[in-house]
Amino acid sequence: MNIAVMGFGVVGSGVVELFEKNHEMITEKSMQDAFDLKYILDIRDFPDSPYADKMVKDFNIILNDASVGIVVETMGGLHPAYEFVSALLNAGKSVVSSNKELVAEKGLELLEIAKEKNVNFLFEASVGGGIPIIRPISQCLAANEIAEVAGILNGTTNFILTKMIDEQMDFDTALRLAQQLGYAEKDPTADVDGIDASRKICILASLCFGKHVYPNVVRTEGIRKISLRDVAYAADSGNVIKLLGVARKAGADKLVIFVSPCLVGRHSQLAGANDVFNAILVRGDAIGDVVFYGRGAGKFPTASAVVADVIDCGKHVNKRKFLGWSDSAPDYVIDSTAIPGKFYVRGTGSADAFSALADVKRLSAPDAPANEAACICAAASEKALLADLSAAGFSAELVMPVTDY
Amino acid sequence: MNIAVMGFGVVGSGVVELFEKNHEMITEKSMQDAFDLKYILDIRDFPDSPYADKMVKDFNIILNDASVGIVVETMGGLHPAYEFVSALLNAGKSVVSSNKELVAEKGLELLEIAKEKNVNFLFEASVGGGIPIIRPISQCLAANEIAEVAGILNGTTNFILTKMIDEQMDFDTALRLAQQLGYAEKDPTADVDGIDASRKICILASLCFGKHVYPNVVRTEGIRKISLRDVAYAADSGNVIKLLGVARKAGADKLVIFVSPCLVGRHSQLAGANDVFNAILVRGDAIGDVVFYGRGAGKFPTASAVVADVIDCGKHVNKRKFLGWSDSAPDYVIDSTAIPGKFYVRGTGSADAFSALADVKRLSAPDAPANEAACICAAASEKALLADLSAAGFSAELVMPVTDY
Repeated sequence: MNIAVMGFGVVGSGVVELFEKNHEMITEKSMQDAFDLKYILDIRDFPDSPYADKMVKDFNIILNDASVGIVVETMGGLHPAYEFVSALLNAGKSVVSSNKELVAEKGLELLEIAKEKNVNFLFEASVGGGIPIIRPISQCLAANEIAEVAGILNGTTNFILTKMIDEQMDFDTALRLAQQLGYAEKDPTADVDGIDASRKICILASLCFGKHVYPNVVRTEGIRKISLRDVAYAADSGNVIKLLGVARKAGADKLVIFVSPCLVGRHSQLAGANDVFNAILVRGDAIGDVVFYGRGAGKFPTASAVVADVIDCGKHVNKRKFLGWSDSAPDYVIDSTAIPGKFYVRGTGSADAFSALADVKRLSAPDAPANEAACICAAASEKALLADLSAAGFSAELVMPVTDY
Repeated sequence: MNIAVMGFGVVGSGVVELFEKNHEMITEKSMQDAFDLKYILDIRDFPDSPYADKMVKDFNIILNDASVGIVVETMGGLHPAYEFVSALLNAGKSVVSSNKELVAEKGLELLEIAKEKNVNFLFEASVGGGIPIIRPISQCLAANEIAEVAGILNGTTNFILTKMIDEQMDFDTALRLAQQLGYAEKDPTADVDGIDASRKICILASLCFGKHVYPNVVRTEGIRKISLRDVAYAADSGNVIKLLGVARKAGADKLVIFVSPCLVGRHSQLAGANDVFNAILVRGDAIGDVVFYGRGAGKFPTASAVVADVIDCGKHVNKRKFLGWSDSAPDYVIDSTAIPGKFYVRGTGSADAFSALADVKRLSAPDAPANEAACICAAASEKALLADLSAAGFSAELVMPVTDY
């Protein structure tokens, strides 16, 4: 049995190095007599790579080589990853992907092809990097009805928020530092505006609740609006601010899903996940809360998850892993601004505007302007809350969910 | 396919209830057309139980019924659990156990029988209750060389330590409270003296490093010696005290393994696991540190793990999961008092006794007697440290490893 790797970037080269480094152990665990890397597909040249002899530029070489049973896709992006993976599965090869965009947008279709062809399409690395999460949810928590899944799914924004919380660094400075350290891209939009996190929470929601959710239906709010005063107000309430992806069952066949900065209790396991680390909480009817913590990105952590999937494909030739979900009705995802909850609100006006609301806690922060107020309160919905506050003359500038994690 | 449950105590009754509650989903995920509970074995009578018609007292009824393919063992204790499980595996039935004593003492032998008979012997619930840990280590981290595994593996002692740390409750009072709440047995020895944790770290070490480790070779220290002043000294160094099971590779084919109260950084994920929660850290060459957190005991959390194993057995009839380890040489486990490290020492005498040691940090605590001193220091070994201190006239009363978690 041979494998091929498509995309020799950070993750792809990590996969190749890890596969070679622990090759004997990996072959044994895969229950293969021989288990070798045959091709690396990349449009670039790598003349000095120790793997130069395996480099190919023509996808069809991999597609048409019957000795290649498992293909790793670490190219990223939707095209041509989608076309390649689709062709490989149709050709009866198992595929392992670290590509969250691909799984979030095309997972349902690709899983169906895999099922039809009796091969595997695995993507442990697409969420939480190296953290075991896809397999624990689909197998270890299989006896549970899952009620909720929530996580710190993006290391870049978690690094920025950690700097804001621990070192009172402002957002722009923290972002520049993240860029200098290589944690953030030159164009940081996908991270900072929550797009990356929204893809990952879609994958988790699809897996936990059995119906595919597409990123375009996820209300997504990033962290650009968070100020150091919000950090201070949150601290005054015993919380920290974390960018979370949240998916929660809301009655039969309805789902609440969003990406937003949220208030999280200072002593919770999610609050303890700092810097570029990720943490994912799963709430099941039998297990209660479990949290998975580790490196959500990076060359070798991500490669660790990819190679684990490769081993699993090796062990399951012509046997399918139970992993799949179905399509969802158009009204599956409900409006997350219309559900009851606890909220943090910061804005301009008098805190008296909150007097008619329930469970109000006025927050204070050093150097807050006299015309600014921040409160935590309970409300029938975010929509109703904002309407009430507006009617009372209060101009809300930032609203965040307050979690019970 | 039918299943049977042996032992209708807390965990066994949880398994039965969960299996019935989520029965449709469980049957589907097990890839079985019908998947029913046929027998419950217990020596006691349960005339009012809704499952009274399934109760049997004769083990041979289960052993000899060919329609029973999977048997759950939630009896606890070594006998007759060992004889029963052994007979069932030999008869070609898969077994799922939550019994840490059984796995720690007889795991090697039972896994070998399972292999020979091409059936499964699974025990996710034996460590960390409902927390997914056995399967993530054996599958998700399969591409890693694991360097170390360490965890808060006993909820009772973690509850007691949490009360000591957060509420300055002394050990005896916290133990009584744990007993009142049902977290601790009337005879708390197995928890408080680290025996329960030593069984669990044996299972984790066997799994992570591939060679069976028996509890009798694990140096095991409980929490009886921990005073509120130790808690205060630890806080002065930025740490908290947690009872950890630790297993660490020490060169080729050597292992360090112990159970001991340890100092853990206040902001670490392990420090954040409080009350009866468990947390397990795994350090791999590719992934770095990952932490798994959740309820380490209790009826439904433990049942969640058992039923997940049952589902896996259902999916893998006549197919074996890769799970196993080999025997270890008599000198596999090395003397953990002979390895270098950082230590916390509290005792009677002058802190001057530490002056020749490296990285010494003198700690202070309110109300400390004048003739008492506590320090953190680095040393070539615990043995050498104690000899040096003794030669300098210092009488050490408590030594704890200082971790880098």
